Amino acid sequence: MPYVTVKMLEGRTEEQKRAMVEKVTEAVMETANAPRENVVVFIEEMPKNHYAVGGKRLSDQ
Amino acid sequence: MPYVTVKMLEGRTEEQKRAMVEKVTEAVMETANAPRENVVVFIEEMPKNHYAVGGKRLSDQ
Amino acid sequence: MPYVTVKMLEGRTEEQKRAMVEKVTEAVMETANAPRENVVVFIEEMPKNHYAVGGKRLSDQ
Amino acid sequence: MPYVTVKMLEGRTEEQKRAMVEKVTEAVMETANAPRENVVVFIEEMPKNHYAVGGKRLSDQ
Amino acid sequence: MPYVTVKMLEGRTEEQKRAMVEKVTEAVMETANAPRENVVVFIEEMPKNHYAVGGKRLSDQ
Amino acid sequence: MPYVTVKMLEGRTEEQKRAMVEKVTEAVMETANAPRENVVVFIEEMPKNHYAVGGKRLSDQ
Repeated sequence: MPYVTVKMLEGRTEEQKRAMVEKVTEAVMETANAPRENVVVFIEEMPKNHYAVGGKRLSDQ
Repeated sequence: MPYVTVKMLEGRTEEQKRAMVEKVTEAVMETANAPRENVVVFIEEMPKNHYAVGGKRLSDQ
Repeated sequence: MPYVTVKMLEGRTEEQKRAMVEKVTEAVMETANAPRENVVVFIEEMPKNHYAVGGKRLSDQ
Repeated sequence: MPYVTVKMLEGRTEEQKRAMVEKVTEAVMETANAPRENVVVFIEEMPKNHYAVGGKRLSDQ
Repeated sequence: MPYVTVKMLEGRTEEQKRAMVEKVTEAVMETANAPRENVVVFIEEMPKNHYAVGGKRLSDQ
Repeated sequence: MPYVTVKMLEGRTEEQKRAMVEKVTEAVMETANAPRENVVVFIEEMPKNHYAVGGKRLSDQ
């Protein structure tokens, strides 16, 4: 605890994901006063045809 | 805002998904009084072996 | 199935919510070819201090 | 209702998943007083590079 | 890991919830081969006006 | 995009939450290469009787 879920379009590199979970974990530790080992991060990727803004999928733009 | 997630079995065509996000977006705009560009729709698909009703997965029926 | 979750700021009236689940259900039925009784809608409301865009909560703007 | 989501690392066998949804469904039926046919279980699998504890992904350990 | 979320209508007693997380945890331990201390259960309750089947909220039936 | 959800026990102050969404947003911007205005953060709080580790709710410990 806390449990953080980052939902984003697919396409980030492994290096970006590795850095992201590190930095997000530190941000949560510092501000929510949580021990490092308790912070959990999940990444959820979505393809462009499963994400729509204003009724239009990214794959249709 | 609003953020709408539609979770369903995989297998719909691209044409069905395109129509679904359009119609769902309009339904939310009209009833929740939200501007079109603020409505976000996520599609989440699940395979038949990851979905169970009454303790039995669809892949086992 | 499908299962639809609508996440939005609190504040809509009961009449708006009732109309929203009706219209969203019809939108999904028509486009995903799902029988009416199988469509499930969940509403999730969030307060302004639990929602941030660009690093700023709505309650801080 | 209830709707149960089990989020776990990928790698379980079909036999494990089949048993898991059966046993979880029974656990919920017995304790939440829900009829069998109303209990729904979703499985969500995540890869090792999308799950981090303490700022480190399982794929980086 | 695994992380289990049980989403249900509000109204269960504390005793029911306590039993439910115990039984669900055991069901997951046995079938997913997970150590007890790794199994996490979240309960999410919803009111009757935020849950609809077939386009009709439970509060409207 | 990205959409970040932070799920944690209730009890943090408004000041902690405000700082958390700021820091998490910056962590995501820097590492996922996302413009500030596209980063969305949701906070979800849970009470101690709705969160269990190892089959025991925090309210029962």
